[in-house]
Amino acid sequence: MRLSEVSKHRTVQKPSGIVTLTTDFGHSDCFAAEMKGVILSISPDSRLVDVTHHIERHAVRHAAIVIDSASAYFPKGTVHVVVVDPGVGSSRRPIAIKAGGSYFIGPDNGVFSKILARTARPALHQITNKKYVLTFDSSTFYGRDVFGPVAAHLANGLDIKELGKRITDPIMIDFNAPFEDNGVISGEIEYVDGFGNAISNIKCKGCEFFETISAVLVDDIPVVPMKCYAEAEEGSLSCLVNSSGCLEFFVNQYSAAKMFDLRIGSVVKLIKK
Amino acid sequence: MRLSEVSKHRTVQKPSGIVTLTTDFGHSDCFAAEMKGVILSISPDSRLVDVTHHIERHAVRHAAIVIDSASAYFPKGTVHVVVVDPGVGSSRRPIAIKAGGSYFIGPDNGVFSKILARTARPALHQITNKKYVLTFDSSTFYGRDVFGPVAAHLANGLDIKELGKRITDPIMIDFNAPFEDNGVISGEIEYVDGFGNAISNIKCKGCEFFETISAVLVDDIPVVPMKCYAEAEEGSLSCLVNSSGCLEFFVNQYSAAKMFDLRIGSVVKLIKK
Amino acid sequence: MRLSEVSKHRTVQKPSGIVTLTTDFGHSDCFAAEMKGVILSISPDSRLVDVTHHIERHAVRHAAIVIDSASAYFPKGTVHVVVVDPGVGSSRRPIAIKAGGSYFIGPDNGVFSKILARTARPALHQITNKKYVLTFDSSTFYGRDVFGPVAAHLANGLDIKELGKRITDPIMIDFNAPFEDNGVISGEIEYVDGFGNAISNIKCKGCEFFETISAVLVDDIPVVPMKCYAEAEEGSLSCLVNSSGCLEFFVNQYSAAKMFDLRIGSVVKLIKK
Repeated sequence: MRLSEVSKHRTVQKPSGIVTLTTDFGHSDCFAAEMKGVILSISPDSRLVDVTHHIERHAVRHAAIVIDSASAYFPKGTVHVVVVDPGVGSSRRPIAIKAGGSYFIGPDNGVFSKILARTARPALHQITNKKYVLTFDSSTFYGRDVFGPVAAHLANGLDIKELGKRITDPIMIDFNAPFEDNGVISGEIEYVDGFGNAISNIKCKGCEFFETISAVLVDDIPVVPMKCYAEAEEGSLSCLVNSSGCLEFFVNQYSAAKMFDLRIGSVVKLIKK
Repeated sequence: MRLSEVSKHRTVQKPSGIVTLTTDFGHSDCFAAEMKGVILSISPDSRLVDVTHHIERHAVRHAAIVIDSASAYFPKGTVHVVVVDPGVGSSRRPIAIKAGGSYFIGPDNGVFSKILARTARPALHQITNKKYVLTFDSSTFYGRDVFGPVAAHLANGLDIKELGKRITDPIMIDFNAPFEDNGVISGEIEYVDGFGNAISNIKCKGCEFFETISAVLVDDIPVVPMKCYAEAEEGSLSCLVNSSGCLEFFVNQYSAAKMFDLRIGSVVKLIKK
Repeated sequence: MRLSEVSKHRTVQKPSGIVTLTTDFGHSDCFAAEMKGVILSISPDSRLVDVTHHIERHAVRHAAIVIDSASAYFPKGTVHVVVVDPGVGSSRRPIAIKAGGSYFIGPDNGVFSKILARTARPALHQITNKKYVLTFDSSTFYGRDVFGPVAAHLANGLDIKELGKRITDPIMIDFNAPFEDNGVISGEIEYVDGFGNAISNIKCKGCEFFETISAVLVDDIPVVPMKCYAEAEEGSLSCLVNSSGCLEFFVNQYSAAKMFDLRIGSVVKLIKK
């Protein structure tokens, strides 16, 4: 494939020209750079933004949460490439998705579960058209040879339909939803961030939410709600509604996860008044 | 707020279009990426440059040194956003500064102390105008909801005066200045870099400076001045005038900080001839 | 030197406008950012791409492999700056190379050995022209004061000949080549990536290659060839032809280097049928 001048078909949704990258490559090798070189060879005017290259190795679930969160803040028409791909070279399908006006490219391994769950009528396509990839023979590096090139062509305005046939059976990861029973809202820790804050799957609308609650517990530890990090006493476990509207557990200046052994799956309970 | 098309007022100083980011977010989460998505939504043509996202957590002092050093090398009109903000959501003020022809956006917690100390007539404004932020209700993520949007508008050419009223009482961190007494110049280690080089607060003009000095000591250890790293014997503690004109202690090929237990505050003495 | 408006002479090879950076600076300091500020001051429209700032400290050999691998995927006319420079400030020469239509800037310490070995008629120039650098007096930071500025001017279209006289005696690192003797191909591990995969210096064309081989050994451990990572049983040492066409040893989901103590120099043997 000649790298440039292939993307001719243009979609109705104008691409933003931005391509984001989310991978588990880390920073010590040049894998991300090779992807970027390929993308810029095909789409010289695209703007590359790293979401993170520090997804825990092969942690598809982690990547699913990160790309869901990050993509919400980019302009429509942005192309988001996710390469957390333990099954690279096997029979897992490479896919491209149009959802909410933006594009998502990566392996069909559940990494787009949250995007798909929250989007009305997403369009999924299996990537099979050789015209828009370097090679499908890549046994170890689809990021560079398939996902990167496809992202660049979409950033150039390619119609997603050109990539391959539509599919309707993507792999989905089950994320537990919170539930209410007998005046108790039950949920769990879904993500621990780099500060050691433990973020639950319970969405709440503003601090006023806490006025309807008599007790908050995580792993049976009672926790006091606060408005912001700085309000809490240093060293004590607290909670607040974070910037994504989720109930989050934290320790002012310290890692809540380390100090109180909070982790993904830790049980959260809210007792209603 | 509609993200785009808000910035109408233009300043006299033409913005460079560059927005730099300095944070303590680390690389494993998508906090920096969310900020970038917001900035590019408001200012699609701005150029984003990471200074670092690895300021030690909540280390305002460290960030103050880094942004002072880095910003000196960017074109005038660049917008520098610093988000090291342990007090996020509390009453600490969000501020925007115009200093030396460039812009600095962040919390009023001392992070711009060095910039302010070395600039003639900086203009400080408290950010209060809702028109240029996503929300002031953000209890945990002013970077995305306030500082990022404001930076993007300044990069678009917004007049800093539009952000809010001028203030004159910023929080300042006290950085100790070196002093001379009875033929002895006394200073201290102010920063330890990633190589373990320990950088003092003593400025010297070129290597000739050492001709006026009979002895250099750090924590009472006598140290031999060199012209460059490679000149020094491996394993021995040496010093030189570094690329910022500061007296720096190093061990060729090793970490001076680790080998000789140098740290911020370590005492430096120069005995004049 | 005034930063902008210096680059007047244009080359025949049109620059891509991309400047890549490969260093051992890490991410906690602002060294890379200072370089970027300088580059953007001279060449405001250039596009900066980080290859990596996590080359192991002073590991010139490692950097030589990384820049060889990464640069192959960037458009011709790209300027690649490499700053792994333990000899900074000493008599080692700063050089600029035109090879394969692209540019390579850095210290003459062997870091471009692989690029030079695989390129027909590279043009090497010692950087001596003061017009295109901030200063040659830099004793610790040629990246910012020499290599960055030169890269920016080349990205602006400067003719490499303007930088200084042509040289023909670059420092070369000896990379061992594989050899065949009596039906046995012998090679060695040349690189260990961030996943712990151990990559050898033996190039093979596709998986069919293994049909001509009766046994693969690394450090005398017999290894089974696979087509892709996911095909291998978890925990067992396997090999495949990687995305660069090299024989690579891996453990599905784990670090082969850690589990089997593979390292640079580990002996690889292929017994032909």
